[in-house]
Amino acid sequence: MTSPGTLYGVGVGPGDPQLLTLKACDVIRTADILAYPVNASGASMARAIAADVIPEGRQEFAVLLPMKVERGPARDAYDNAAGIISGHLEAGRSVAYLCVGDPLFYASFMYLAARLGADRAIEIVPGITSLSACAARTHIPLGGRNEILSVVPATLDADALKTAISGADMAAIIKVGHHFDKVRTALREAGLADHAVVLENATGGDERVTPLEDVGENETPYFSTILVRRKDLS
Amino acid sequence: MTSPGTLYGVGVGPGDPQLLTLKACDVIRTADILAYPVNASGASMARAIAADVIPEGRQEFAVLLPMKVERGPARDAYDNAAGIISGHLEAGRSVAYLCVGDPLFYASFMYLAARLGADRAIEIVPGITSLSACAARTHIPLGGRNEILSVVPATLDADALKTAISGADMAAIIKVGHHFDKVRTALREAGLADHAVVLENATGGDERVTPLEDVGENETPYFSTILVRRKDLS
Repeated sequence: MTSPGTLYGVGVGPGDPQLLTLKACDVIRTADILAYPVNASGASMARAIAADVIPEGRQEFAVLLPMKVERGPARDAYDNAAGIISGHLEAGRSVAYLCVGDPLFYASFMYLAARLGADRAIEIVPGITSLSACAARTHIPLGGRNEILSVVPATLDADALKTAISGADMAAIIKVGHHFDKVRTALREAGLADHAVVLENATGGDERVTPLEDVGENETPYFSTILVRRKDLS
Repeated sequence: MTSPGTLYGVGVGPGDPQLLTLKACDVIRTADILAYPVNASGASMARAIAADVIPEGRQEFAVLLPMKVERGPARDAYDNAAGIISGHLEAGRSVAYLCVGDPLFYASFMYLAARLGADRAIEIVPGITSLSACAARTHIPLGGRNEILSVVPATLDADALKTAISGADMAAIIKVGHHFDKVRTALREAGLADHAVVLENATGGDERVTPLEDVGENETPYFSTILVRRKDLS
């Protein structure tokens, strides 16, 4: 009987391929199967970041994850992917599942892993988060001394957003996308709009950094994070 | 006239040398001067993590940073180090300053950079944070869906700690060290002690993972982070 393979959750970082870790490169080069999420048009940001490291001819498995938040289709997609991955693991094949950023920081990997059962061997290779990337590109510190850093998903409702932002020394608002107008309103109401910077694709090829109030009224920054620092560290 | 050199703030990650990024390796291999903090006994965790990548004979500059929080000696140490680094930069030499974790995540690099003036060329190479390392080693997600993640320094006073912990879906309490008893009391009073895990040196050679209530009453976990997850993500 073959012993079961290991599933690796591999963080490939925020966008710059040079921000892969040595360990991520090693796992990508040696795993039997490479899996990664793709969107409806077949594009995979995770695969694109790791492309230079992927050996030619390696078996790949693209997991189509619905972008919409309706729970049903997403659940089916995870169930289906978990079934296929389980099959590989049972046959003794190792699987590296590539995740943009870090596998356990607001990423889809954990929903997949949860479906595989406690008996599976799972190893996490942490990655550089979009947060660290945003800080690096703006030189805005994420935190220091006695400061509290709050990481706040833009998917929260307006009141919850405002409460979370108002209480933090430093806030990072993630998953902004089409929630941008709601977030900007919350920041204005909290008196923090002038302290906020919008980052799109930090460290990636199409990076943009814009003070919040310089974003046009009809623009929706794509794949973005907003850093809000109440006062300078010094 | 030589053009001034660049100062690189290089995150070397949480402890496992395999968690260095490709970019960090590249900068460490090519910078003219390697700088890093050392403690009073001359040990440098940052240098130890990067040791395999440091070329033989490279010029090194150990920055002695007082561990005590008294502001005076620490300020003098930063002022002094900034002066020496400035000299190298003006002479056209590049300097890589190694930081455990990420240079802009509760690290000393930012206090050094602040002393160098806005005219210096500074580039940040982000690193894997202790947070991502702790998540990877315990499989505890840092955040997902609508969750707010709070990063809370253990240096806060007991009341501020309790408030910060009580409001978060997920909290990471950093810089625990000799604040352990205060933090444990705050977690008990917030009813969260049974949800807390203590990690020492996550991914490093002497890693320890202990449920909070299994830490002995007279133990002080060294170089530790506490993860507090209110409820499972599913």
